[in-house]
Formats: sequence, structure tokens, C-alpha cells
Amino acid sequence: MDPITMKLQAEPVILAALREDMNAGDLSTEAVMPEPHAAVVDLIAKQDGVIAGLDVFERTFTLLDAAARVELMPRGTSAEAEGTSAAPADSGAAEAGVAEAGTCARPVRDGDEVRAGELVARVYADARVLLSGERVALNFLQRMSGIATYTRRVAGYLEGTGTCLVDTRKTTPGLRVFEKEAVRAGGARNHRYNLSQAVMLKDNHIAAAGGIAQAVAAARERAPFVCTVEVEVESLSQVREALAAGADIVMLDNMTHAEMAEAVQVIDGWAKTECSGNVTAENVRALADLGVDYISSGALTHSAGILDLSMKYLRLL
Amino acid sequence: MDPITMKLQAEPVILAALREDMNAGDLSTEAVMPEPHAAVVDLIAKQDGVIAGLDVFERTFTLLDAAARVELMPRGTSAEAEGTSAAPADSGAAEAGVAEAGTCARPVRDGDEVRAGELVARVYADARVLLSGERVALNFLQRMSGIATYTRRVAGYLEGTGTCLVDTRKTTPGLRVFEKEAVRAGGARNHRYNLSQAVMLKDNHIAAAGGIAQAVAAARERAPFVCTVEVEVESLSQVREALAAGADIVMLDNMTHAEMAEAVQVIDGWAKTECSGNVTAENVRALADLGVDYISSGALTHSAGILDLSMKYLRLL
Amino acid sequence: MDPITMKLQAEPVILAALREDMNAGDLSTEAVMPEPHAAVVDLIAKQDGVIAGLDVFERTFTLLDAAARVELMPRGTSAEAEGTSAAPADSGAAEAGVAEAGTCARPVRDGDEVRAGELVARVYADARVLLSGERVALNFLQRMSGIATYTRRVAGYLEGTGTCLVDTRKTTPGLRVFEKEAVRAGGARNHRYNLSQAVMLKDNHIAAAGGIAQAVAAARERAPFVCTVEVEVESLSQVREALAAGADIVMLDNMTHAEMAEAVQVIDGWAKTECSGNVTAENVRALADLGVDYISSGALTHSAGILDLSMKYLRLL
Amino acid sequence: MDPITMKLQAEPVILAALREDMNAGDLSTEAVMPEPHAAVVDLIAKQDGVIAGLDVFERTFTLLDAAARVELMPRGTSAEAEGTSAAPADSGAAEAGVAEAGTCARPVRDGDEVRAGELVARVYADARVLLSGERVALNFLQRMSGIATYTRRVAGYLEGTGTCLVDTRKTTPGLRVFEKEAVRAGGARNHRYNLSQAVMLKDNHIAAAGGIAQAVAAARERAPFVCTVEVEVESLSQVREALAAGADIVMLDNMTHAEMAEAVQVIDGWAKTECSGNVTAENVRALADLGVDYISSGALTHSAGILDLSMKYLRLL
Amino acid sequence: MDPITMKLQAEPVILAALREDMNAGDLSTEAVMPEPHAAVVDLIAKQDGVIAGLDVFERTFTLLDAAARVELMPRGTSAEAEGTSAAPADSGAAEAGVAEAGTCARPVRDGDEVRAGELVARVYADARVLLSGERVALNFLQRMSGIATYTRRVAGYLEGTGTCLVDTRKTTPGLRVFEKEAVRAGGARNHRYNLSQAVMLKDNHIAAAGGIAQAVAAARERAPFVCTVEVEVESLSQVREALAAGADIVMLDNMTHAEMAEAVQVIDGWAKTECSGNVTAENVRALADLGVDYISSGALTHSAGILDLSMKYLRLL
Amino acid sequence: MDPITMKLQAEPVILAALREDMNAGDLSTEAVMPEPHAAVVDLIAKQDGVIAGLDVFERTFTLLDAAARVELMPRGTSAEAEGTSAAPADSGAAEAGVAEAGTCARPVRDGDEVRAGELVARVYADARVLLSGERVALNFLQRMSGIATYTRRVAGYLEGTGTCLVDTRKTTPGLRVFEKEAVRAGGARNHRYNLSQAVMLKDNHIAAAGGIAQAVAAARERAPFVCTVEVEVESLSQVREALAAGADIVMLDNMTHAEMAEAVQVIDGWAKTECSGNVTAENVRALADLGVDYISSGALTHSAGILDLSMKYLRLL
Repeated sequence: MDPITMKLQAEPVILAALREDMNAGDLSTEAVMPEPHAAVVDLIAKQDGVIAGLDVFERTFTLLDAAARVELMPRGTSAEAEGTSAAPADSGAAEAGVAEAGTCARPVRDGDEVRAGELVARVYADARVLLSGERVALNFLQRMSGIATYTRRVAGYLEGTGTCLVDTRKTTPGLRVFEKEAVRAGGARNHRYNLSQAVMLKDNHIAAAGGIAQAVAAARERAPFVCTVEVEVESLSQVREALAAGADIVMLDNMTHAEMAEAVQVIDGWAKTECSGNVTAENVRALADLGVDYISSGALTHSAGILDLSMKYLRLL
Repeated sequence: MDPITMKLQAEPVILAALREDMNAGDLSTEAVMPEPHAAVVDLIAKQDGVIAGLDVFERTFTLLDAAARVELMPRGTSAEAEGTSAAPADSGAAEAGVAEAGTCARPVRDGDEVRAGELVARVYADARVLLSGERVALNFLQRMSGIATYTRRVAGYLEGTGTCLVDTRKTTPGLRVFEKEAVRAGGARNHRYNLSQAVMLKDNHIAAAGGIAQAVAAARERAPFVCTVEVEVESLSQVREALAAGADIVMLDNMTHAEMAEAVQVIDGWAKTECSGNVTAENVRALADLGVDYISSGALTHSAGILDLSMKYLRLL
Repeated sequence: MDPITMKLQAEPVILAALREDMNAGDLSTEAVMPEPHAAVVDLIAKQDGVIAGLDVFERTFTLLDAAARVELMPRGTSAEAEGTSAAPADSGAAEAGVAEAGTCARPVRDGDEVRAGELVARVYADARVLLSGERVALNFLQRMSGIATYTRRVAGYLEGTGTCLVDTRKTTPGLRVFEKEAVRAGGARNHRYNLSQAVMLKDNHIAAAGGIAQAVAAARERAPFVCTVEVEVESLSQVREALAAGADIVMLDNMTHAEMAEAVQVIDGWAKTECSGNVTAENVRALADLGVDYISSGALTHSAGILDLSMKYLRLL
Repeated sequence: MDPITMKLQAEPVILAALREDMNAGDLSTEAVMPEPHAAVVDLIAKQDGVIAGLDVFERTFTLLDAAARVELMPRGTSAEAEGTSAAPADSGAAEAGVAEAGTCARPVRDGDEVRAGELVARVYADARVLLSGERVALNFLQRMSGIATYTRRVAGYLEGTGTCLVDTRKTTPGLRVFEKEAVRAGGARNHRYNLSQAVMLKDNHIAAAGGIAQAVAAARERAPFVCTVEVEVESLSQVREALAAGADIVMLDNMTHAEMAEAVQVIDGWAKTECSGNVTAENVRALADLGVDYISSGALTHSAGILDLSMKYLRLL
Repeated sequence: MDPITMKLQAEPVILAALREDMNAGDLSTEAVMPEPHAAVVDLIAKQDGVIAGLDVFERTFTLLDAAARVELMPRGTSAEAEGTSAAPADSGAAEAGVAEAGTCARPVRDGDEVRAGELVARVYADARVLLSGERVALNFLQRMSGIATYTRRVAGYLEGTGTCLVDTRKTTPGLRVFEKEAVRAGGARNHRYNLSQAVMLKDNHIAAAGGIAQAVAAARERAPFVCTVEVEVESLSQVREALAAGADIVMLDNMTHAEMAEAVQVIDGWAKTECSGNVTAENVRALADLGVDYISSGALTHSAGILDLSMKYLRLL
Repeated sequence: MDPITMKLQAEPVILAALREDMNAGDLSTEAVMPEPHAAVVDLIAKQDGVIAGLDVFERTFTLLDAAARVELMPRGTSAEAEGTSAAPADSGAAEAGVAEAGTCARPVRDGDEVRAGELVARVYADARVLLSGERVALNFLQRMSGIATYTRRVAGYLEGTGTCLVDTRKTTPGLRVFEKEAVRAGGARNHRYNLSQAVMLKDNHIAAAGGIAQAVAAARERAPFVCTVEVEVESLSQVREALAAGADIVMLDNMTHAEMAEAVQVIDGWAKTECSGNVTAENVRALADLGVDYISSGALTHSAGILDLSMKYLRLL
């Protein structure tokens, strides 16, 4: 996330999340650690996936302790090889770690793939901050990484096609800035950020306006001239109406493959084409093969699940 | 959601979500509906599931238009039978609706099961409010219903056992009050709300305190006396330490079924027992059969996915 | 202003303005009116101009008193003819009012021209609300009307041309949503709302990117695909670079009329054209005659001055 | 601005202005500068005027990047002589710079006069912060400098008189603390900050109270005893009522020069005198010659226009 | 409290207090009253004292339930006589109530004296709102009434003197607007609201300025001309310095009675006089007899204690 | 206060308190100190008592000036011996200081007893920050120390008993986190933080539920299972009901000593016992001798009064 967005948009959300989790202090941590004490803890991946949100994870701790520091480990570092686990690092584990030691891999960053058991980072801070901030930091990181992981998987099916995977506005209320970032880390692109960024005329708008032509004309007259106008259509006749009205983008919704194929031919480059609705990992390639420019999927942000990560092996320093 | 929590906790989050989606107005809606116009739109379930968050859905609209009104339909009302769909309601559909008409079902409410194609509610408001608020209202409702749906499924496996399904703090940052509500609607119960409500001493706390005995003693000395103390253990020796230290609740983590079975016997009612970690619909019954009091599952809130619902067929009145 | 923007964006700003003006009550009003008392006051134009912000003016009072009411007068109502001025309404003034009485003019609304001495509205509320809210309500109304008035004047010079007058981001910090509204009331259109709505690559961006081609390519790769890309150019060679790079809009900055004329010919419809920089009422027509699509003027929002209006003749009811 | 006011009052407004301009990031800057890069940019005056708000300008950048730094240039530094302009600095320009080099002028500060073409400051920061913060920083600086410039001009006409120029509450909603600061930088003084700082009894208050005597008595009874009481009068008989009631300050409103002259004689030092209403650069000296203590002008803050400044010649370091 | 201050200043504080007391709902109330149910509860004084904050008490409930209503009882209504107590109202109690029944007393209001056992008001609302809001509403009412009660007692000693009792800035952080209101209800007046309302030059300011003359001159030059200047002095020589410097008010601090008596003579009406420091109910009259204009007491707001009131006998309706 | 609570909960309250006291700057300080100047000032106790809130005191200054520093003095340092007082430090005072010099006492901290005349700390900061922040910093420190002082006194009477003194929710609205901290510094413990932390069923809840058994059952069914259930009882029969219902804690309210003695016997360890209501320093020991586990006192937070401290002898450095 660029640092200005982090400062202006993300920080207030992180602080609100911390307050949600500690309205009157962390009873457990205050009991066991009444005084400050430097400590370190390991961030370990428990599943294979794509990491995203490392800076949000870090910011959660630095908001609580300006001296907190996240050491990002070289890619592919094995938690066991590093020997901080409670279980003694046996020789086999040590050998598994050799590769990393030898290759001087660069530190992990958003968009990298991590493997179950990988030591992703070490966090140094006052033990109280590590204990109190852990859950909130992980809640952000796990959700963002879950989105990036799922996005990477779906986007993979589009490799070699000219079709681009994009997200939607079906994001978690209040977390859009995080989720759109995670989608990018996963390798897809963003559709419009919100209702103020671009015009999209859906079935209900068209009903309210009295038709596609009226709706597009109204948008051209009233919206800022820098904004594009997208029209959602459900039939070939609507495709033609949208083209005639001068839509910049035509979104094909609830159409059969055959209809979509014909629609792409009819549009023939006169507008960009987007296809939406029940996109899954299974059917996304078939959609791409229709030649649409964009495929949008709400599932990227509303149904990705998390990537499991945990903070383990806290050591007082 | 009780109305005081709605007012104090939920409303600011709903307003923030609306502002996130419209930082400078809704370009599309302002274009097609520059003047106020009464309208109605249908809320239709597109999947079978458990509905939750109807009051949050409604509040999203009433925050924008004090005159907005959500008419909750009798349970089991078919969208097609109601005839507001664009497609003509054929006789078969009408017949399917007969049952509802005859039975005077009570209006749908949180926790009810809905079926794909069911007309859940009708929303009456200024068309601009319907168009602009739709996505945010659905984002809340779909997530809450997704959690309730998944929770209902998992909780179903515990029927007839004495074991209770509970949630965790692995909630979406900023949305805990909504998600804990959805868990209840789905038929499970809530674990502690946050770090200020109860003491839970996990591996990292125990490491920081120097042992279970020290950690529990510190909590008894410093936390409010009304708060319970839970200890997370990973072995039978830790189970005994926790009991000796006087833990109110013992959480069995990362233990084999055999170990957990023995742990339950050792504890023998001297503390409540909770079991956690990778709980799935598949393994939850086997865990319950161990005789633990509570099974906690982070997946209820972090991996439930959404229940698909949509707002269709806007009509100007 | 659409009511959703009013609720979500404008209300918090109005409340902040009221708090700025009354951090600890209104000493004068609390002294003279310790008890509630219904009253009415007249809103009178003291200069000719275009009114804008009537709903913001009204909302200032209704935020303080839910029962407050603004009665918008028929267009062209003379304050003197209405006879509420302290000075006796002589027969001449009364006659001046005859025309309005006869014509059943519709109530004034944003974008209407008002004349010095015109009774624009009457405000009914608790006298304390009228006294305490007056200055803040007028500060909004006067600024918005000042912008609408100046915008109307400049836009007038473009009548009959195909060129459209637009605003800029040179707005008053925190008041953009009000000022963009006022620009529309004055008859011009809005340029991009903010840095998140569209891409505009200016000299400093081009310097940072290493050239126009690189800057446009980066924007196409990273910005949401629904966003347009505008490039600011200062020479004909830059015009050609921008066209080659596929800019959607080319902004001609700091160019002579001759250069701009040539630029328009070079562009020849392959991109929209905008011209900016030191636009004045005096030179705006000459710029339009170059055939550019848009002329943007920062002065519309940063140097319009106010339209003088006042609240007079408070009567207790 | 004193640093406590900056921290408590100004910073939240600056942050709100940044968020207004970047609700979801700066699309252009993120595209061209995805990674951090040190850079510098020049702040250049494009008109002659009085500078004000340099610390607000600086704080805008340091809020986004703690390492940002504004180097204030020696007074009178020529932008061309400094040679950072794109155009090569020829020898003539270098010579023009000699004077500054020789005189070791102190760095520019609020209240200084700057000339068109003057290099006022250089800003060092991450290029992304320079690009994203530019417009907001300038919007503050240009408005504050515009007010200081206009105030200096009007105040100049009062030199050698005993009359003091003061501002009003006709400030931009939300920006009063900035505008009152700019008025001081321009050489005038502040009238009351807001309705909570002092009592001013205007026509509408007097009407509500039933007369000047009643209004003043009520204020003396109810307002904090440290607060002064000012009465706005429109006739000589009202002047005498205000004096009899014990007003601390008498404001002469809507009176002819002859009336005001007589009023000053009647008051004869028993109260301070203020004159208001349609004060212009043209008539202000004549008002002062009447011997009033204070002349208040709303135009200082509502109609000053901006001072044109720009940020040019960004260089990556 | 005037309704505008209530809306702008008090409401956000009341909401914050409610959120402080219910970050995640009211566990007890949600358990026993899961559904809405109309109810009424009695507000009863448990000590003699002066009531203040009735509107804040009411607003706490109406913020949670727009339909909540506080019925203020006639002055002197006995709780027992009203018969809502659990204990049967015996005939003696009934007789004690006769007087009130006969006299048609007006409803109680801020500043009224209440007696132990008095039924002050009845609150009608959803039972959940009564139960959840009780403590916060009482916390406000008890503190405000405690201040009013103590203020009334101290002010009573000044009856018949020309000296006025005033408060200080030694108020509870965040509650100044409530506490200054309570002071007025108790019969004293307010000193300056805050550091922005008037100038007071204390020992540390005088040390920083280098003397009284310098400090006063600086204030006259820089503070708004409507603001008065008070100087705190600790000796007769300082009294003379303050007078010579033109102080509007001289505050006698840490002086003996003899010194203060002489100081009053020296000042002789050329400035207002205030005396401060360790003012108690016991010594306040002796201070007044010195002839000072104002006596300020921090104890009014920082050490008044509460007036005990309780909400009893909730009945479901 | 732990640093996380300070950051998340306390800082916003401190900032709000500073804004309450300086909505538009500190007129006095800006006048006498227009430029920054390093200075130091002494914090001196004016009464004997227990200090609490030293970190809140410090944070008030560091929020205004990141370079501000509070030097905590060795325990028992005499202000006079340190010689910064205006009065010359005579030899006796110097000798009184010898003891401290010789014993290398550790710096004062929360919970320490201080004596009248003790130099508690020195604060180094920009003189403007010292002058402007003084009152707010002291308002926090004096209130927190007053609570700690009173708590220490009451808790002292319980020494040697097994009874623990606890606070209540009768705290100042918005300041609970500070007051609960001060109670701990004074040597007592905290009762539940708020309505969301534990269940307490009082008379009104029992009335609403229809009885103790119903109320407890409802709480067990609906509240998070980690939360304890306390029941307030007013008679022995209610004690038995509460025990039968399985209450974790029984609070004895409005009972005679004899009744309470019997209640303790009846409960006999099957629940914790708490006694409440009109607890005073005078009667607290007698209550403890009944053998109750906890005595709760609202007076600890609502009627403690302040501990007088002052900031004196500012010196420019």
C-alpha cells in the first residue's frame, strides 16, 4: 500500500480495530507483563498461499509502539530450520534450510508465495505490544493474504489470454482499501473504487431512467467529463442500445456463452467488454475464451477465505 | 441486534461504509434520478441459507432516508409468485406460491432459513436511496447471512450433544459486533467479545509469564474479579498445571483426540473445557463426542463466505 | 445537492462549522433569549447574482432545530413590497411588487438569478436558532452563491460555442463538495473530483516518470481500467507524444493561442482537448474559439468572492 | 501559527483536506512512482503579494512523510537565478541573483512580501508525497496568502491614523483558525473569534430582547463577567441608548459619514467605536478619518482571492 | 442548557459516555429483555440538594430511544405518597403528600431544591433503554446536581454582599460545558470558559514575559480587542503594576486579608477585583466583606461530590 | 497506565480536553511568548496524598511538544530544598533535603505518597507548551491523585482482613479508564469495567425478568459463557434464590449488618459475596468483619475530591 493511503485511509481503520479488541485494555497481557520487556515473535505461514498486507501487519504494531520492527525473512525461510520452534530443530530440518542460507533470497514482500511452515517475518517490540496486537494484525494479514491467494489462483487461469481479471464493490464494509490492495497483490486489477469514480448503469438505473439511451445521455450530461460510462446489459438488443448510446464499457450480465460470444462480435472493439456473474475458478477460462476484455468477480473479495498464519514462539530478549 | 447496540456501535460503521462507497456522490444515480421519486425494490435470495442482519440492511436505507421502509415478507414467499419479476409469472409459479398465501406465515426474521428464489423483503424509499444504498446494504446482509448459514450447518452436527459451538476473535476488523450477532442468529454462542472481557492465557502469555501457575496468579491478582480466567494448554501436564492453578476454563489446543479424551477425564468437571483448532463441519461431531463443553471455530467468521442475495425489479411508484 | 451527499458529506461539515462558531454557546443569544420563542426572519439579497446552496442554508437551521422551516419565496419577490422591512413600504415599492403578485412565479431554487433587494426566503424557527445559526448559514450560502454568480458570468461567454467550462481542484480545503455543486448551479461542469477519480499527468509526474510515454503506460497498467488518462502538455511535441501514448484527454497548458490552435488541429478529435491557465472572463471566448472541448478555470472556486445576502427583520411570533 | 493551535486545530483540518482529495489514493502518482524516491520541488510565487501559511504548507507534507522538509529561501531569491527552471539559467539571470547572494537575507516568513518569480522555498520529500500533497498544500497557502495580501493593502491606507483594521466572522466554514492567522500576517487584527468569545448585540438580538437597554442588561447578567459587550447601532438615538446601557464597544452600522462623525463625538471615549459595512480599499481611509477606533471588514476573509503560487521543477534526487 | 449547546457540544459527550459503558452491548439487559417492552421507572432523590442536568438526563434516554419521555413531577412530590415504591404507602406517607396535591406546584426544573425521598421524575421508555441508560444518565445528573448543591451553599454566604461567586477552569476534562451549566444552576456565575475567551496573566506568564507591564502590553497588542485582560498579583506592588499597565481585572492571589483589604482600596474601582485560592464555605463571607467584586472557587467543580439520586421501581407497562 | 491503553483510549480524551480548553489558541500565552523558548517548571504537591496519573500528566505535554520531558524527582524531594522557589532556600530547608540526597531514593511513581511541599517532578518543554498545557495536565493529575488518595485511606481500614475494596461504574462520564487506573494506584481493585464485561442483575433487571431464577437463567443462556453472573439481593430469601439459581457472585444491598452476617453464613462459600451501598471510611471495617469477599464503593470515584498540586516557578532556559 502506498504510504499516503496507509496514513490517510488505513491507519484510522487499524486504530478502530485495535479499539474494538481492547476497549479497556488487554486483561491477560497487563496481568502477565505489567512492565515493558523487549521480545521477539515469529510469523509463520500455516498454509501455502500468497502473502499480502505485510505493511498493514507491521503498522498495527508500530501504531502501538513506535520502536516496533518487522524483520521480513528471505523468501522460503523454513521456520524449523531457524530453530526457534519449541521443538528442537533436528538435522533434517536444518538441511532443509540450507538452500535458503545459500541463495541469499530477497526478503519476502506482498505478492510472494509462501509455503506452510515458512518463517515469514520476525516481529521485535515490547512484549505487551506483541501480545496485545497479535490478533488484530493477523486478522488483517490473513484476510488480505486469503484474497491474494484466491485471486492468484483465478488469475492463473487467464494466463495467455488477453482478458483481465478485476474485482467488484462486493467488499467488506470499511475495508475496501485493504481488499482492493490485496486483489492487486494477487495479480488482478481493480474495477471502479466506488460510486463516485465511474458511472455504471445497471438494471435498476435503466428502469429508473426509462431506458439505456436515456440513462447514458443523463450520465454524459451530469457526471464529470473525465468519468467513463459503463452499461450493464442482459440481452443482445440491450448490447446494441448501449453501443448506440455510446457506452465506454458494456458489461454482459446473465447471458449464455452463446449470447456473450455474439455480443463480443457485435461490439467489435467499439466499447470495452466486461463479463460478470458467478465467475468461478472453474468457468473463468471459458469466459476469457469468448474474448471479453474484463471478467469481474465478487468472490475475490467476498468469499476468498483466509490464509492461515500464526505468531508463535515469543521470546523475551 | 438490540437497538442500543445498533445506535451506539453499528450506525457509525454503516455510515462509514456508505461514505467509503460514495465519497462524492453516486454519479450514476444522480444522473438518472436528479429528482426524488418514490420507488420499491425486491430483496430476493439467490441461494438457500439462513438470513441475518435484516435490521442492519434496513438501517442502511433509513440512515439515508428517514421515510424508507422495509416490508418483511411472510416466510417462504416466492419471488416469482409475487409477479414482480420481469419475466411473466406463469401459472406454475403461481401455484408454487399458493402454500404461502394460505398459511399466513409470520414475516421473515433473523435466523430464518430462506430458499433460492424467495422474496425476502420489499424496500420502499426514494429511488435514489434504493439505488445508492443497495450495494452497502447487501454487503452487510450477505456477509452476516453467510456467517449465519455456515454456523447453522456446523451447529447442526452438535445437536443432541452437550457441547456448544462458539466463535472466536478471528473476526473482520471493525465488524465484530455484526459478526457475533450473525453467529448467534446461526445458532451458536459467543466466546469473549474482546481482550477486555475475559482473560485467556495462550502459549505466548505463558512464555512471557514463565509458566501457567505464574500467569494464572497474575491474572487473579490484577484482572477485575468478575472476569474468568481461561488457559490454553497443549499437553496433559499443562492440563494438570492449569487445574492446579485454578483456571476457570481449560482450552485444549493442538492435541490428539486421545489426549483430549484423557484431558476431559482429568479435568472431570473442575473446569469448563474448550477445544479449538481447525474445527470443520467434518470433524466437529467427533470433537463433541469427547465430552468437551465448548468447541470454538474461527472459520465461523473468517471463512464462511456470503449468502447470495440481490435487489431486483426496481419500480417507480 | 442530492440528499445522500447532504447526509453523508455535507452535514458533518456544517456541524463542524457550527461548532467552530460556538464552542461554548452563543453568549449574545443565550443572554437575550433564555427561553424558546418562535420567530421568523427574512433572507434578502443585497446584490444581483445567482443563488446556490439553499438546501445547505436550510440544513444549517434544521440541524439545530428539527422544526425549523425555510419558506422559499416566489422568484422576484421584492423585500420592500412584502412590507417586513423596518422602513414603511411606500406605495411605489408596493407597485414594484405587483408584477410578482400577478405572475404566480415558482419558488426560487438553486441556479436562479436574484436581484438586490429581493426577498429570497423566510426562515421560521426558534429565535435562538435563527440568531445563533445565521452567520454560519450565510457563510455557506454567500460563498456558494458567489461561485455560482461568477461561474454564470464566465459560462455566458461560451454560449453558442461547443466548449464547456469546467472547474478544477483549486477548491477551499474541506468544502469541495459544496463548491463543485455551486459550479454546477452556475452552469458549468465539474472536472475530476479528486486524485482518486481520474488520472492527470502533469509536468511533475512526467518528470518523475521520465517522459509522457512512460507516464501514460504506467497509468494504463496500474489505475482502475474505468479511469481516463489526461496528459498536460506544454508544447506541440508533447501533444504528439500524448497522442501517441493514447491519452484520453490532452490539456494544453501555458501555450500561446497559435500553439493551441495548431494543437487542436493536430489532435483532430483523437483525444478530448482541455485548455487551462489564467482563464478570465475576458479571454475565455477567445480560448473557446480555438475549438477546445473544455476550458478549466480555478478562479471559479478560488476567486469568485461572495454574493451578499443578509438575514433581516427578525420578528417574534 | 503557534504550534499548539497547529496541533489541536489545524492538523485535523489538513488531514480532512488530504482525505477529501485522495479518498482512495492518488491514481496518477501511484502509477508513475510505485516506489519511494527522494525528490525536491520549488515553490515559486507567480504574483506579488504577502505570504502567509508557510507552516501550514509545510505541515501538509510532514503529515504525509515525517522526513519531509521545507527549506525557506532567503527573501528575494529569484527562481531563475537559482537555475532550477527547465530553461537554462543564462548569465543575465545569474546576475540578477547577485544581490541576494551578497546580502545574506534572512529566510522568508509569514508576513513577508514576495514578488512574481521569487523562489520562496524548496520542499524535500519522497516524490510521491510531493506529487500527492501539492494541491492541498497550495490550496491552503494560496488562500492564506491571498488574505494576507489583501489585508496588507487595506491596512496600508490606515497608516498614520489611530484606527485599527479588524476582521469579522465572515470566514470560510471550517477554516477560521487559518484565516484569522492570515489576517494577522497581513497586518490587521482579529475581532472576536466566535459567538462564545464576546457579546455582540445586533439588530436581530435587539429586536428579540425588546431594546438595547434590555439586551445589554441581559448580557451583563448572563455572560461570563470577563466578556465585553458590543452593541450594533444604526442611528444616533441608538448610540445614546448603547452608551446609557454601558456598552463597551459601539459598532456604527449603515450610517452616513456625517452621522458617524457625530456618533464619534457623542461617544467621546466612553466606549470604543467600530465601524463596519461595505468597507473597501477605496473608502477605508475616509472612515478612519472619522476617528473610529476599529474598522471591520468581512471582505478580508470572504473576497480576498488567492495569491498565485506554484510548485515546479520536481527533480528526483 | 440551551438546545444548541446541547446539540453541538453535549450530545457527542453523552454518546461517548454511553459507548464507554457499552462497547458491546449490555449483557444483563439483553439477557432479561430480548424484546422491546414499554416501561416506566422513578427518579428519586436520596439526599437534599439542588437539581441540575435534567435535560442531560433526559437526552441520554432520547438518544437511545426517540420515543423516551421524562415526566418532570410537581415540586415536592413525595415518592412514598405516589405509591410506586415496593413498600405499601401507609397513611402517614399519604398525608405528607397532601400539601403537594393541593398546591399544584409547577414541575421541577434545574436549580430547584429537592429533598431526600422526593419523586423528581418518571421516565417512560423501552425497558431496555431504561435499564441500559440508567447509570450514564445518573452519572451526569448526580455530578451536575452535586455541583449545583455545593455552589448554592457557598453562594448563600454571599447574599446581601455585592460580591459574586464564580467558577474556574479546574473542571473535569471533557465536561466543562456541563459543569459550568451546573454552576449557574447553583446560583453562581462563570469565569472565562477557556484559554481562548479572555486573557489571564498568571505568575508563570509574568515570569515568561519579564514583568506585568510587558505581559499586559503584549496582550493588548496581540489578543482580539474585544477580550479583557486580567492580571494575577501576589503583592501590593504588583497590584500597582497591574493598575499602571491598565489591567481590566486584578486577581488577588495568596494575599493576607490585610493585604487584600489594602489592595481593594488601592484599586478603588479602576479595575474589577477578584480573589481566589482556597475559598471555602467557611471563609467566603470574610473574603466578600473585603469588597472584592468576584470570588472564584475551583472547589465548585473539582470537589463538590455528587447528589445521590436513584432510579427505582421499574414497572413494565 | 499500560502504553496501549494510553495510546488507544487515553490520548483521544487528553486531546479533547486540550481542545476544550483552547478552541482558538491560548490568548495569554501567544501574547507573552510569540516565539519558542525552552523552559522548565516545577510540579509541587500542596497536600499530602497518593499520586496517580503521572503518565497522563506527561502525555498531555508530549502530545503538544514531542520534545517535552518530565523528570520525576526522587521520592521525598523538598521543593524548598531544591531552591527553585522564589523564596530563598534557608539552611533549615536545605538540611531537610539532606536525607534525600543521601539515600538515593528512586523516582516517584504512581501509588507513592507525596507530602505537601514536595517537588514531585520538573517539566521541560517549550515555555508555550508549559503555559498552555498546565491546567489540563493538572486537571487530570489532581483528579486521579484525589481518587488514589481517598482509595488508599479507605483500603487501609481493610488491612488484615480478607476483604477486598473495589470500585463501581459510578465514574465520571468519559473518564472511566483514568479513574479505574487511579483506584488501582490507591490500592483497591476494579469491579466490572462496563455493561459489556460481566452480568449484574439488579432490582430493575429482576423486576423486568420476573424473578431471580428467570434472570439468571436468561443470562446463562444469552451472555458469553466466559462472563460471570452477579445478582443483587435485598433479603435473605433473595440470597437463597440467587444461590439456587447458580449466581457466581451475590451482592448484598440495603441489608442490615445482622442480615448480612446471616447471608454470609447462608452463602458459605458457594458464591463470592459483595456488599455495597453507602460505604464510608467509618463503616468499612465493620462491613469487612462480616466476612464478605468484596466491598464496593462508588464514592471512590464520585466523591474523592482532588489532591492539590501546582506548577510553579517557570524558568526560561
